[in-house]
Order: sequence, then C-alpha cells, then structure tokens
Amino acid sequence: MSPLPITFLSDFGLEDEFVGVCHAVISRIVPEACVTDLSHGIRRHDIDHGATVLARTLPYAAPGVHLAVVDPGVGTGRRGVAVRTAEQGRLLVGPDNGLLIAAAQRFGGVAEAADISCSPFGADRASASFHGRDLFAPVTGVLAQGARLEEVGERLEAHELVGREPTEPSARNGTTAARVEGIDRFGNLSLDVGRGLITRTGLRLGYPLVIELAGERRVEAVFANTFGGVAAGDLLAYIDSWGSLSIAVNRGDAARALGLAIGDQVRLSGAEAPSARQPA
Amino acid sequence: MSPLPITFLSDFGLEDEFVGVCHAVISRIVPEACVTDLSHGIRRHDIDHGATVLARTLPYAAPGVHLAVVDPGVGTGRRGVAVRTAEQGRLLVGPDNGLLIAAAQRFGGVAEAADISCSPFGADRASASFHGRDLFAPVTGVLAQGARLEEVGERLEAHELVGREPTEPSARNGTTAARVEGIDRFGNLSLDVGRGLITRTGLRLGYPLVIELAGERRVEAVFANTFGGVAAGDLLAYIDSWGSLSIAVNRGDAARALGLAIGDQVRLSGAEAPSARQPA
Amino acid sequence: MSPLPITFLSDFGLEDEFVGVCHAVISRIVPEACVTDLSHGIRRHDIDHGATVLARTLPYAAPGVHLAVVDPGVGTGRRGVAVRTAEQGRLLVGPDNGLLIAAAQRFGGVAEAADISCSPFGADRASASFHGRDLFAPVTGVLAQGARLEEVGERLEAHELVGREPTEPSARNGTTAARVEGIDRFGNLSLDVGRGLITRTGLRLGYPLVIELAGERRVEAVFANTFGGVAAGDLLAYIDSWGSLSIAVNRGDAARALGLAIGDQVRLSGAEAPSARQPA
Repeated sequence: MSPLPITFLSDFGLEDEFVGVCHAVISRIVPEACVTDLSHGIRRHDIDHGATVLARTLPYAAPGVHLAVVDPGVGTGRRGVAVRTAEQGRLLVGPDNGLLIAAAQRFGGVAEAADISCSPFGADRASASFHGRDLFAPVTGVLAQGARLEEVGERLEAHELVGREPTEPSARNGTTAARVEGIDRFGNLSLDVGRGLITRTGLRLGYPLVIELAGERRVEAVFANTFGGVAAGDLLAYIDSWGSLSIAVNRGDAARALGLAIGDQVRLSGAEAPSARQPA
Repeated sequence: MSPLPITFLSDFGLEDEFVGVCHAVISRIVPEACVTDLSHGIRRHDIDHGATVLARTLPYAAPGVHLAVVDPGVGTGRRGVAVRTAEQGRLLVGPDNGLLIAAAQRFGGVAEAADISCSPFGADRASASFHGRDLFAPVTGVLAQGARLEEVGERLEAHELVGREPTEPSARNGTTAARVEGIDRFGNLSLDVGRGLITRTGLRLGYPLVIELAGERRVEAVFANTFGGVAAGDLLAYIDSWGSLSIAVNRGDAARALGLAIGDQVRLSGAEAPSARQPA
Repeated sequence: MSPLPITFLSDFGLEDEFVGVCHAVISRIVPEACVTDLSHGIRRHDIDHGATVLARTLPYAAPGVHLAVVDPGVGTGRRGVAVRTAEQGRLLVGPDNGLLIAAAQRFGGVAEAADISCSPFGADRASASFHGRDLFAPVTGVLAQGARLEEVGERLEAHELVGREPTEPSARNGTTAARVEGIDRFGNLSLDVGRGLITRTGLRLGYPLVIELAGERRVEAVFANTFGGVAAGDLLAYIDSWGSLSIAVNRGDAARALGLAIGDQVRLSGAEAPSARQPA
C-alpha cells in the first residue's frame, strides 16, 4: 500500500533548519512519502493566521495526513492532538490550541480525536521546545503509513479540544467592520469578509466603495473583478482567489499604501452617489 | 507509465501559500509526480527576469512539463498557453505574455501550441486572480500524465504567441552598453553580455576594465577567472556559471557597493595601458 | 534497487535559482530520488555555521548521500571531496574546507575519502563559480544510484582532509565564556555550550543566571525548562532542542533584545543568592 500523502504548514519560516529536519524525520519513517509544504510563512505564533491558511488550502490537497505547527505554548501543558475529519477521513496533527479546528470544519468537523502528548511514537528524549520534530513529525509519519488514531495516542472527545472564537465582521447601517486576515507577497490585504457577507454589505461590482482606516482617514476604491479593472497605481477591492474580499493596488502594494498590518480593522461602505460613477 | 517530471518557476515568493497550494493541486492530480522548484524568487511581475531564469535553468532539467507563472495580466484578456518545443518535446505551461519564448528557443522553438484559457481541466469556478492554482497547475498535472496539447486547449499557431523584444547590449568604439539582468543572493550582478559578445568587447582575462555607472561615476575591476582571483573586497568581472559577464566583489556585495538594481545600465570598456598591469 | 535518500544543505538561500537548478541536476540523474532540503539559510560563506547545522541535523535523516555546499573558496585550488563515515556508511559530498568534518565525527569519523575535483561525473565545462551545480550535485546523484567512492574520484587519506579547529567555550571561576553559534527565526540564541559543559557550569534549573555582554552590560535570566517557564517578555536560558544552552525571550526576540549576532561572545555565571529566589 502506498503511504497517505502528507501536507505540512508552520510558522517556522525557511531561514533555518526547523522545516528541513521535520522533513528528514518524516522521510526517515516513510521514505516514499510525498510531502507538500503548504506554507511556512505563517506569522510567528499567530494561531488565527495559521488556522485561516490551513482551512483555505486543505480543500486543494488530496486527503491524507495534514501536519500543522503554530505552537506558542510548546513545552507547557497544552496537548498535542491528532484528529480525523467526518468527511474524507483526513487526519490533522498538531498542537491542541485551535489551529486545526477551522480546517476540520471544512470537512464535517472532528469525528475522532487522540491526545498524542505521550505518544509511543514521539522521540525517546523529546525536547521541550521542538515538538514539531520530536512529536508531530513522527506521529505524522506513522499515520501516513496507516496507523490508526488509537495507536498513536489516548482517545479524546471532540468537545474536549480547544476551540477558537471565530472573529466575525459586523455589518450595520451599511457599514461593515472588517479585519485584515492576511497579507500576501504583493501587499494585497485579505479581509474576513466572505462571499455571504459581501452580498449583505450591498457593495456592487464596478461601483466605488469607501475604506475607513484608523484616525478617520478615508480612501476610495473600486469594487472590481480583478487588478486590471483599474489603472496601475489605483486602489481596488475584489473577491480574491479564496472567496474573500481583498483590497489591492493594481501593480502596487496596498498594505504599504494604506499602512495596514494583519489584525488591523477597517470599515467599508458604499460610496455616495454611485449612479454618477456608473461604469459603462 | 510514470508521469513526466515537472518543474515550477514563479514570482510568488515563499512567504505565503501561493506556491504550496499549486503543489497541492498538482500532487492531487499526479500523486507520484516529482516537482522541482526552479525558483520562486523572480522579481514581482518582471516577465523579462522570469524568461531569463527559465531559459537558463531549463537545460539542466530533464525534459518534461515546465510550469512558469509571472503574470501581471492575470484576469484580463491575456491567454493561457501550453507549448511543445521542437527539440526534446518539452511542454511549457504559463501565461501568453512572452515568459516562455526564450526558453522554448533553447529547444528549437515552438513546434505546437494550445490556447488553454478555457481548458476543460481548469477549475470549475476559476478565480480571476490566481490562474496558477486554478488553470496552470491542473493543466500541468494532466500533461504530466500524458495528455496531448489538443486535449488541454485550442490549437494556436506559433506566430500567434506573444513574443518579447530581446534587449541587446550594444558595443561601439570599444564601449559596451549592458543591462543588469539579475542579482543573486550574494549581490553579484549578471549582465546581458553572453560569451559571443564578450569576445567582441575586446575585454581580456586578467586585465582591468572600466565600469561606467550613472552620473559618470567610473570604477575599475579586473576581468578574473573567479572571485579568488582578486583580493577580498575588490571588484571583479567574470564569466558567471550561466556564461554571462557578471560583476562581483570578492566576499562582498557588488549590487550594494555600486548601487545597482535589475534593469540598470552600465558601460564597459577596457582600461587604458593594460600592458602596465599585465599579470604574471 | 531504489536510490539512496539525499539531503541538501547550503548557504545559497531561496531567493534565486541556485538551489532549484541543483535539484534539477540531481533529479535528472536520479528521477526517483527523494531529496530533503535540510537548510539553505546558512550564513553566507560561514563554514562553521554550516558545519554546526549539518552535524545537528544529520542524525535525524536516514543514512544516504548528504550534499553540503558552503564554499567561499570555489574556483580556487580547494578540493572537492566525497567521504564515507565509519558508522552507518553515510556519504558526505562538498568542498574540502572542513564543512563536512563535524558531521562525519557524529558517525565515527571518516572511513574513506575521495578527491572529486576532477571527477568524471562533473560537468564537461564546469563553471569556476558554481561547483554545486556542476560538480557536487552530479556526484551526489551517481552516489545515490550506488556508485562507489573510487568511481567518483581519486583516493584520499582521511588525514589529508582540511579540518576545523573546534572552538571550545572555557569555564573558569564559575564563569563560562561562550559563543553565539546560531540564531533561529525567533531570535533565540544558541550557544556552543552542550549538555556536558552545562553540568560543569553549575547552572541549576529554575535558578537565575547572569549573562555578561560586551561593554560590561549584565542581564539576568532564569534557567528554565521552556519558554512558558517565564513571563512573556522575560529572558530565559534553556537547553534547546539540539541539546545546547540557548538564550531566549518568551514570545520575544533575544537576539534583538540583547543586540547579539552569530560569533559574539557572552559570559555566563550563576546569580548571587539563588536561595532567595528558589522556585516552589
């Protein structure tokens, strides 16, 4: 039987040997493993950022074993867990700090869970600070080889898992308060405003909208289909490739232009007198 | 039959999940695929830079399917294409903006091409801003599994493809006007001056040359075999590992020392009285 | 027979195509090769840094062919070498500048060595500046396919290899002079103080210690089990995941807080009156 495919996401970055040595550990256990690095650029210790990216990217990956490590509590009492999703039977491995929950919910939620903190497959002398290498990677390896959850840890009820309070943007009086959830390499700002909410905001494609920043600074953007829908250097809002509302500068850097960082709040509303600016 | 080997080049960088999710898509279609990342450090939206690096590196890779994405026009009318080279039958996949042409010319040019903009293998609800994930990666996957060009898109004549005007350095009166084509991690400056032109410049190994920068600033370098041919901290010109003339500082950073960036122009000429400096 | 697993470590970084083209060369020779990138973030030209990371990470990787390139002397007279370790028969490939020696010593030292500078498997027209691509990668590929050392180069005695003078921290009068060996993405400072020396320093878990920096600046840290053992923002010393003493700021950046870089010296001693601070 070929091993299950593996994906790997973390906040380790690629500047040092953290990611590489986890790959070495997995590859030693499952030499023929195919490991896809989803991202190692999660903001350091930002569990929400990691949870968002994991939930976004996992639907594109084949079902298998999905290792995720954003772990500010490593070495303290927090549990390590492995969970199986209700749909597709995906196996998610990582710290029990909420990182895995949003992704699991994309696949029907958690059907089965195990506390792997004292897994027999962890390193004999596990370090207190690098559970990615000493616990999560080896458990990922044996799961990819076909081990069952009850073999890698102690049974845990789904409701015992640590959850995350989802932050929800609020829409009131035609104004939507949103949060910057991600910034890509190009400076495009991804907001926590999905397709459903976009409909409710009343924003309309081709029409301008107002973005209110801290200190009552207001800028105007066009709600366009894609970057090329506005002139180079102009601000636009668009539905990004993950289905979220994003703000960008065509061929520019919106994060820099607006001075925004992950976690910052903005307020969105339709610009007045849209009929005067109606596109052809 | 094993799948064709795949290479992947882009301007996505490795800070976020762009590259990872493309790998996930390919791996889902071709689980046993071997995907070699040639580079994801192409300067954002710099088609010339991407074309240069693709043409340089492809001869080192086994013939297969070669995915390349530097795509400032994503979501606008530009086509997506797949082409087959006359020699070695390599398959190149990416946007029709000239990115693939220089690489194809290394293998006898384009023998066959397909417009894949509406490929049946693209995602059902392709995003307007991420064709790497939704169009180019899946087409790459099915080509690696043996699909033919006519299966992934509409036939296109080679002359219909968008070309790039190659920039050519000019040599006149013993002075060569050249352009910085690339800067590596070490700050070495690669110029658009290949082996043929080096011969015509009259520059001679072991002899000094003059590099003229903007604002009539002039510096002197030695045309050496390699870094160790000059003292630490000294400027040299050398034929780099791609066969182009490069400028470097031994154990230093020439880009920083000279204040040069990709696209900048320099003028090269032999220093006067070389015989006085003839090496032993 | 399946090929031997391969690992790859370098100071090339991931900004350009250096790493990618080496992968392409290996993959062309051994299409079914599994190549694990241990790290490409070694400080440029820092042989000691590369040697430390290689020796740390190799025990986690399956025995195979281990390519390492940190090569400030490329193109000069320095040899290229391949060595076989006494234990596990691991094959190490890289420049003969001491980079491979500390790793080899983890596996019983060098049992057999070959000078591969003029290897028949090097590129026909090897460049003077990129032996990673033109010499070390192809030799790595053929070794992974089962070639013997005598086939890839000329026999060399182990004592002819270039060694490195190991730097040793000194402990005197209760004070240990140590050197910063590595800094990870999180700003944690890894010192050249291993488990044996930690015992001899007299530092005790749960007790404070004094770190003396340049200019007689002194700061106090707690010798804790892990980050969570001190409050957020507080300084701690801990035994890191490689078994070395490290200095960190819980949820902060110790390198920035203390202004320390790789190679810097610090002096460690127990703080006075530890009994007054004895942990519960």
